[in-house]
Amino acid sequence: MTKKKLAILGSTGSIGIQTLDVVASLPEQFEVIALAAGSNLPVLFEQIDRFQPAIVSVATPELAVQVKERYGTRLQVEAGHTGLQTVATVSEADLVVTAVVGTVGLRPTLAAVSAGKDIALANKETLVAAGHLVTELAAGRGTRILPVDSEHSAIFQCMHGGKASEVRRILLTASGGSFRDKTREEMARATREDALAHPNWSMGAKITVDSATLMNKGLEVIEAHWLFGIPYDRIEVLIHPQSIIHSLVEFQDRSVLAQLGTPDMRVPIQYALSYPDRLEANWPSLDLLKVGTLTFLEPDLVRFPVLGLAYEAGRTGGSMPAVLNAANEAAVELFLQGKIGFLDIERILMSVMEQHTPVSKPDLEEILHLDEWARLAAYRLAVQ
Amino acid sequence: MTKKKLAILGSTGSIGIQTLDVVASLPEQFEVIALAAGSNLPVLFEQIDRFQPAIVSVATPELAVQVKERYGTRLQVEAGHTGLQTVATVSEADLVVTAVVGTVGLRPTLAAVSAGKDIALANKETLVAAGHLVTELAAGRGTRILPVDSEHSAIFQCMHGGKASEVRRILLTASGGSFRDKTREEMARATREDALAHPNWSMGAKITVDSATLMNKGLEVIEAHWLFGIPYDRIEVLIHPQSIIHSLVEFQDRSVLAQLGTPDMRVPIQYALSYPDRLEANWPSLDLLKVGTLTFLEPDLVRFPVLGLAYEAGRTGGSMPAVLNAANEAAVELFLQGKIGFLDIERILMSVMEQHTPVSKPDLEEILHLDEWARLAAYRLAVQ
Repeated sequence: MTKKKLAILGSTGSIGIQTLDVVASLPEQFEVIALAAGSNLPVLFEQIDRFQPAIVSVATPELAVQVKERYGTRLQVEAGHTGLQTVATVSEADLVVTAVVGTVGLRPTLAAVSAGKDIALANKETLVAAGHLVTELAAGRGTRILPVDSEHSAIFQCMHGGKASEVRRILLTASGGSFRDKTREEMARATREDALAHPNWSMGAKITVDSATLMNKGLEVIEAHWLFGIPYDRIEVLIHPQSIIHSLVEFQDRSVLAQLGTPDMRVPIQYALSYPDRLEANWPSLDLLKVGTLTFLEPDLVRFPVLGLAYEAGRTGGSMPAVLNAANEAAVELFLQGKIGFLDIERILMSVMEQHTPVSKPDLEEILHLDEWARLAAYRLAVQ
Repeated sequence: MTKKKLAILGSTGSIGIQTLDVVASLPEQFEVIALAAGSNLPVLFEQIDRFQPAIVSVATPELAVQVKERYGTRLQVEAGHTGLQTVATVSEADLVVTAVVGTVGLRPTLAAVSAGKDIALANKETLVAAGHLVTELAAGRGTRILPVDSEHSAIFQCMHGGKASEVRRILLTASGGSFRDKTREEMARATREDALAHPNWSMGAKITVDSATLMNKGLEVIEAHWLFGIPYDRIEVLIHPQSIIHSLVEFQDRSVLAQLGTPDMRVPIQYALSYPDRLEANWPSLDLLKVGTLTFLEPDLVRFPVLGLAYEAGRTGGSMPAVLNAANEAAVELFLQGKIGFLDIERILMSVMEQHTPVSKPDLEEILHLDEWARLAAYRLAVQ
């Protein structure tokens, strides 16, 4: 049996590390060809030693020099945006895992699709900012966009139970995040640490804050729209505090399929890697007797207006989701740096959206230009 | 578009009536060719007037005369076992719905499979008593056995998310029946009316009593074994009082798929009729916000030993499930007639199983012979 060859963008981030956990558990199935990391060299060095990729890319030329000093000519070392592109399009790779966080993932993901690679997509921003470009390109190239997010993986798995044209509603579940039961007053006083205390999932800092504002779910709504071709009025969000049902699909005959599991990202990661097969895993099974109770609540758009903004951006379409996403990245960064309060995030997003006149069907350069503009607009609003 | 042509065995029973509800709601999709009923002529006459079948069968020649008197030569009227066979094998039918209750469904279902018909199977006893014969015959003929039971329909729908060889466990959910929260003392005193007060589903009397003993779930375990080719130690029962999750499938990668819906048999019936398509339905969607909470409990084999007996019969194999099933039909009938108490059912089943030396791979005649023997043995035990 030939091994599936992987290139992984964002290997030292949360999803990247868990992707390599999966690869390590299935050495007969997968082989790592190329890794792109940022600046976490200690973790990257461990990964290189363990998985022996042929190509590695890091954030800057300076970091690349350090990698070269350690590995010499045994390893092809690249850097920066061109390095990401090289890893994304390496000719031997069967599947490119795009696990970088943020708009930086956009260009290499498009490059990988152009190169005819199947994508295991963990980078939300790609579909949020450029869903029209990615889906068109992937359809033209005949490549698969396999979702890694637990929610989209759940929907993808449920979609096998019928045809896309037979779907009536998608129900995206949300844990509700760190502030699910908090009042607006409590949120106004919330610190970085409060926001990072997510009840169920172990994730990166940015996504954990997005989970607290429900922006994460908003971005997922937009992503689901593009991945599955479903209009926004048929994508609903359901608060499900236990995070056991990862999402549901209702078909037009009123039959509902759901995917469930422990809150362990390795399950959807492995499915994206192994698709269309399912491989034996050795992590624990879901024990519904231990879970005991599953509950469901309506999302509170008054306490969490950011979810409403995301729907609005999605429905507006064109460049609006890209602008919302970029403004959000900037605002979350400012919050994580302690420069703005938690509720300033939503204030900034509303203002940036108000300032923006959407462009329909923006190309990549327009998207990246508006991305920059939205970040600047967000920073400007933060210092007011 | 050509309509799918249906023959329905057991048209005046609970599943038969609901099957015709589905047909009535989708007049462009389905056409009724033949109906087999028992002795409920008023309901049958309504069905004939509404659906205009070409052939009808009733329980006895006497009843057939009454039907002929009303419809004259416009309608081909048959009776008894041969009538059931005629309806089951009518050449125009694309799909035969076998919704008769009990062992009486065995012979016509096998006849329909032999005639190359796809089967919408609502008759549990067919697979319980003759799973080896039906599955072998269906495989040879290339016909589909489409489950109508909500649990097996759920499993069937979830199985689309992977390959049969990738299934780790099937989790059959059970409401727990009318006596879920009753003590053994309360069960000992239980009346027919107590047993028939099922909390969630509206079903026939026999199946409602089977639900109270958990025999219904036991028969479903055996049925699932044959339908999906899964060994007994990988089929588990989970008490789920709300009956919203109709069953779950865990794959070897620990991903779990579930099918959910309101407790409405029309959903799985319609899926069996429309498979592989899903058709628009106009009944209410599942509202998880209204349901609010889903809970899960372990089945109590001490209070409900009948479930254990079914597993034992299934694992023993050969003729044992047929014997258990026949003894159960007799015992439930006696209970419904007020001739034995509720806990006498389990006593009778245990004794009949003890008296039987299982035959491996029994043929149809042996099964029918042992079916009769088991009924007699059960009656004998009742009068002791």
